[in-house]
Amino acid sequence: MAKEKKLVESITSMEEDFAQWYTDVVKKAELIDYTSVKGCMAIKPAGYAIWENIQHELDRRFKETGVENVYMPMFIPESLLQKEKDHVEGFAPEVAWVTQGGLNPLQERMCVRPTSETLFCDFYANDIQSYRDLPRVYNQWCSVVRWEKETRPFLRSREFLWQEGHTAHATAEEAEERTLQMLHLYADFCEDFLAIPVVRGRKTDKEKFAGAEATYTIEALMHDGKALQSGTSHNFGDGFAKAFGIQYTDKENKLQYVHQTSWGMTTRLIGAIIMVHGDDSGLVLPPKVAPVQVMVIPIQQRKEGVLEKAAEMKEALAKAGLRVKLDDTDKSPGWKFAEQEMRGIPIRIELGPKDIEAGKCVIVRRDTREKIEVSLAEAPAKAAELMDVIQKDMFERARAHRDSHITDVTSYGAFKDAVEHKPGFIRAMWCGDEACELKIKEDTTATSRCMPFAQEQISDVCVCCGRPAHKLVYWGKAY
Amino acid sequence: MAKEKKLVESITSMEEDFAQWYTDVVKKAELIDYTSVKGCMAIKPAGYAIWENIQHELDRRFKETGVENVYMPMFIPESLLQKEKDHVEGFAPEVAWVTQGGLNPLQERMCVRPTSETLFCDFYANDIQSYRDLPRVYNQWCSVVRWEKETRPFLRSREFLWQEGHTAHATAEEAEERTLQMLHLYADFCEDFLAIPVVRGRKTDKEKFAGAEATYTIEALMHDGKALQSGTSHNFGDGFAKAFGIQYTDKENKLQYVHQTSWGMTTRLIGAIIMVHGDDSGLVLPPKVAPVQVMVIPIQQRKEGVLEKAAEMKEALAKAGLRVKLDDTDKSPGWKFAEQEMRGIPIRIELGPKDIEAGKCVIVRRDTREKIEVSLAEAPAKAAELMDVIQKDMFERARAHRDSHITDVTSYGAFKDAVEHKPGFIRAMWCGDEACELKIKEDTTATSRCMPFAQEQISDVCVCCGRPAHKLVYWGKAY
Repeated sequence: MAKEKKLVESITSMEEDFAQWYTDVVKKAELIDYTSVKGCMAIKPAGYAIWENIQHELDRRFKETGVENVYMPMFIPESLLQKEKDHVEGFAPEVAWVTQGGLNPLQERMCVRPTSETLFCDFYANDIQSYRDLPRVYNQWCSVVRWEKETRPFLRSREFLWQEGHTAHATAEEAEERTLQMLHLYADFCEDFLAIPVVRGRKTDKEKFAGAEATYTIEALMHDGKALQSGTSHNFGDGFAKAFGIQYTDKENKLQYVHQTSWGMTTRLIGAIIMVHGDDSGLVLPPKVAPVQVMVIPIQQRKEGVLEKAAEMKEALAKAGLRVKLDDTDKSPGWKFAEQEMRGIPIRIELGPKDIEAGKCVIVRRDTREKIEVSLAEAPAKAAELMDVIQKDMFERARAHRDSHITDVTSYGAFKDAVEHKPGFIRAMWCGDEACELKIKEDTTATSRCMPFAQEQISDVCVCCGRPAHKLVYWGKAY
Repeated sequence: MAKEKKLVESITSMEEDFAQWYTDVVKKAELIDYTSVKGCMAIKPAGYAIWENIQHELDRRFKETGVENVYMPMFIPESLLQKEKDHVEGFAPEVAWVTQGGLNPLQERMCVRPTSETLFCDFYANDIQSYRDLPRVYNQWCSVVRWEKETRPFLRSREFLWQEGHTAHATAEEAEERTLQMLHLYADFCEDFLAIPVVRGRKTDKEKFAGAEATYTIEALMHDGKALQSGTSHNFGDGFAKAFGIQYTDKENKLQYVHQTSWGMTTRLIGAIIMVHGDDSGLVLPPKVAPVQVMVIPIQQRKEGVLEKAAEMKEALAKAGLRVKLDDTDKSPGWKFAEQEMRGIPIRIELGPKDIEAGKCVIVRRDTREKIEVSLAEAPAKAAELMDVIQKDMFERARAHRDSHITDVTSYGAFKDAVEHKPGFIRAMWCGDEACELKIKEDTTATSRCMPFAQEQISDVCVCCGRPAHKLVYWGKAY
């Protein structure tokens, strides 16, 4: 009983302490556990099943665009990491170094990959010879390591799971096209599959990826008004190609450098799902990504016929294409409800002796707690229909929350006031000078999240320095 | 053209130099490339797609038996690795050590996991409290690192991909049952899906896993007569549970130690597919695991209507549920045939103007090179039917080869003669004394592969020392 009790103990409320609420949810929804390896987490079945659904759907969408999966080594020799100047400066301070293999010290130390641009470049330098070999559109699913000082489950850990795409193209135009194609694929995936609305845009030079010419990003807004960078896509131009000597012979038999991109999404997305959709009863999962979509919970299950009917209902729901479980443990219905709610299962179906006698059951939505009485025969079709409704409603609610947490400002006073009193995105004009970005960060802790594709001129001058400005920027505190 | 040429250059023949033939195939079928990271390979799309099919099917079979996927950290602190005495002795000499994180030396060095028993045990020690928490049947897909001195693609590399299952049970009986269940699952998978016949049995104490009470194995025979250990399943009893303090409260409220198992399969299986089924024209893939099952190759494709018909054929084959590609590049049909053969695609469909006029096409089997003339309309159904036929024929041929390479011996002279002159498995009785195993290995380089479940008494005495013997053992040279 000790174990059950923990599950349904009330968790810290979001209002009281959002960070503690988050920690309570990841633990009590049994998504992760802490480990003896500092800064690294164990992803438990309920957490990993969410990642598997994300992987499966993203991988399907990737392959539709011609992506092929590969696997590169997890180690990067130091000399390889150093080949691209900006890249090594960005990553060297935060990598883990392997210095000994077996019983002997290594002649050259190697880091555990923090990202694999250098490995793909080293590979492509041999692999690509002619224009016939292009484009290369490769991706890998793996884990990477970044030696963070402060860690939080899913949001920032020393090891995390991700996919990283690395492509090589004949022309700059084609590389830019692929960079944007993947950014939009990520954005559509977040909106359609995770019910998370995102702002699509470009990072400022200060915030772009180490070694990239341009970084595009999707930014989501969490329930507490902080931003979460949810996926990025980088255009490298021919910078890495020149550093690594990746050349191809074109149709006129001339040597040309390739143009490259990379793009990635991580287990951080699970953090986004929690912080966009969760509530004070725990996790709330959008139906498309939910490992279990329906929990059937029998009431007074010892009464004759109840468990049989519940099992029949489970079968009927599975036949209707739903991912369904039956909770026939000996816990009380109240415990079971609380568990199903904590785990974010989109609907439960309650089924007791009186219901069965009346030929009906009760469907309860996790997101709205709405109770829907429906005949036993109609329940599977109704449940299937609710999956679409809930998915759509969750997206709309998240969008409404996001939209009501955007503040347009045209003066620095209003900017500082907004950071302090209006959690959410701040939209303000920027002159393009990094000094203003730095000053804003120092004064307010807010950072430039992106220059949205949908640009508007909401004022003529930079919100920070007052000089002429033509760039609309989303700013915010961020995870 | 340089690139195409490489593909169809003749490869070393198996008879001439089997090791070189193997290397030629992995390179020219474009399964892997070597990297700047010594002992680690890059798995290219054609190789990784085979692994994805293996993963998908194994994962499906796992989940049918109640397995849940999780993810543990890739690092093991040294103190954790040392907790189980036999285990650390087995693995410490061959691990890679991380000694620095970011800019600072670590207080305690950590190895990159060579296998994750210690991490799962550390996790289970907190995770498991009551009999209600049992069994735990967890698995993870990841890569592991073992600092091998000699490496060969897929067969032995410093980093390789695998799955590792780790389970915890209330009783010794249940643990033994799960150990054997997974061994048989592996064996059935190899035989059904990879068309590779295996011998199922138990390892001798000398050959068992570091820390295990019993190790079960499946052993396959390669074309050159050497054995390849293709999957193992270990019963740990309560040894690790005692070392790590993994206890649960039973129904009588008494503390008990759990009983554990682990089991794994790796990218080594791709090496087995190559060496069991390949021939002097390259790879031969069993249809079930082949990423591409049919290659449609147009003849005189510039003639009007040929490419259109070829594209129609491709569509019809896809509709029949086949994984199909159309080779409409400007290479000659001869090049295309050679490429399709090198890559091991189970059948090709040749389609030229005369065929189209006559309303027919030619199907060519990769495994037998048999040519089958068939009407255009019947081709998809015929191709689908051939998938089953080829899968079955490949298994039967591999089994016949294996069975014709088993030599029963009852004297040490005959044993030594067989090792030298009769490549394959040797079956001989063994007294159970490790000294005999060591002597045999020293004298002949052959090792005990397994004590098969199907025991027979083919002689009364040990083939090595002549003392009474009751154990039939498969011996052989091994990869």
